[in-house]
Amino acid sequence: MRQFPRPIQETMAVFGRLPGVGPKTALRYAYALLNMSEHDRRRFADATINLRNIRECSSCHMHTETEVCEICRNPERDNSVLCVLAHSRDIATIEASNAFKGKYFILGGVINPVDGSTPDTLNTEELLKKIESSPDIKEIILAFSPDMHGETTILYLSRRLKDFGKKISRLARGLPMGAELEYADEVTLGDALLGRKEL
Amino acid sequence: MRQFPRPIQETMAVFGRLPGVGPKTALRYAYALLNMSEHDRRRFADATINLRNIRECSSCHMHTETEVCEICRNPERDNSVLCVLAHSRDIATIEASNAFKGKYFILGGVINPVDGSTPDTLNTEELLKKIESSPDIKEIILAFSPDMHGETTILYLSRRLKDFGKKISRLARGLPMGAELEYADEVTLGDALLGRKEL
Repeated sequence: MRQFPRPIQETMAVFGRLPGVGPKTALRYAYALLNMSEHDRRRFADATINLRNIRECSSCHMHTETEVCEICRNPERDNSVLCVLAHSRDIATIEASNAFKGKYFILGGVINPVDGSTPDTLNTEELLKKIESSPDIKEIILAFSPDMHGETTILYLSRRLKDFGKKISRLARGLPMGAELEYADEVTLGDALLGRKEL
Repeated sequence: MRQFPRPIQETMAVFGRLPGVGPKTALRYAYALLNMSEHDRRRFADATINLRNIRECSSCHMHTETEVCEICRNPERDNSVLCVLAHSRDIATIEASNAFKGKYFILGGVINPVDGSTPDTLNTEELLKKIESSPDIKEIILAFSPDMHGETTILYLSRRLKDFGKKISRLARGLPMGAELEYADEVTLGDALLGRKEL
């Protein structure tokens, strides 16, 4: 695309690295930015840079700006139920369903040996330690996407956790096999939470 | 979405201002950025900021980094044909068709009184001056999207230009009515250029 000035080409190149963005979409975004005020573009750039302030909660591994995240610090959340999720972003989906008032733990992914993701590279040992040292926890919900790797992770964790004598559950099969947790609608997800199945 | 840390919320907010980006897409983009290295995020921010270096070519109003754009300075381009476009980004689409070797002039939009875009707010007078002072120009192609405002602009300009004694043409009706020039495929656009119709 030699006919674009270099700053526009560069903007298209960086936007082209976002998921699902091809050259035409990148061009649209570049022109949308070009038509913004310099102040708005600065805000855009600052937002990008300020992502470096994101860290993981020392208790649950959720993305946060503070040492311990807002949910872990909230005394109104139910300590007796722990919802284990693959990614920090999944929390938003669960929270939006309004069907869960317990606490979370982020595993950091699912078991997927081809991608180099094994129980050792995930926060598995920390999860076990947390459960061992928290007599308050009565139930553990393994809330992974119901695809091959999610199912593998549920199977693995349910075996590792069964000796703790806690109730272990999974999301109900309201989600069709192969679906992405991230894109589930709130009603379906609420049903899946309420109809969770003990393992 | 109070459950996201502020830097992620802010990133979602700024991305949500791009055309066609809703909250779920903005979230995907925010996480893609979060998973990039700090160096890559800095590159992203710099690209955004460096858009301020874009100016308009003093000869054709195309976006450029220099006083006069690359195409205006190129001695191999055909001075006898001038292609008038609504927006600078349309040049990329025309260039990709490889069916045009002349020069360009960017009108800066189309006539659309509801949006406050009239011949006076566009580069109309400059276009007329350019044509008046350039005896080299033998033909003017009015290459606007074939929608209501594009057609209005073609009609208006063809009337204003008819006394100059130049050939005035428009893109052939290879493009269906209501289509967006930006999304035309290269083959259709090449046909439309070759089959352009004298007014």
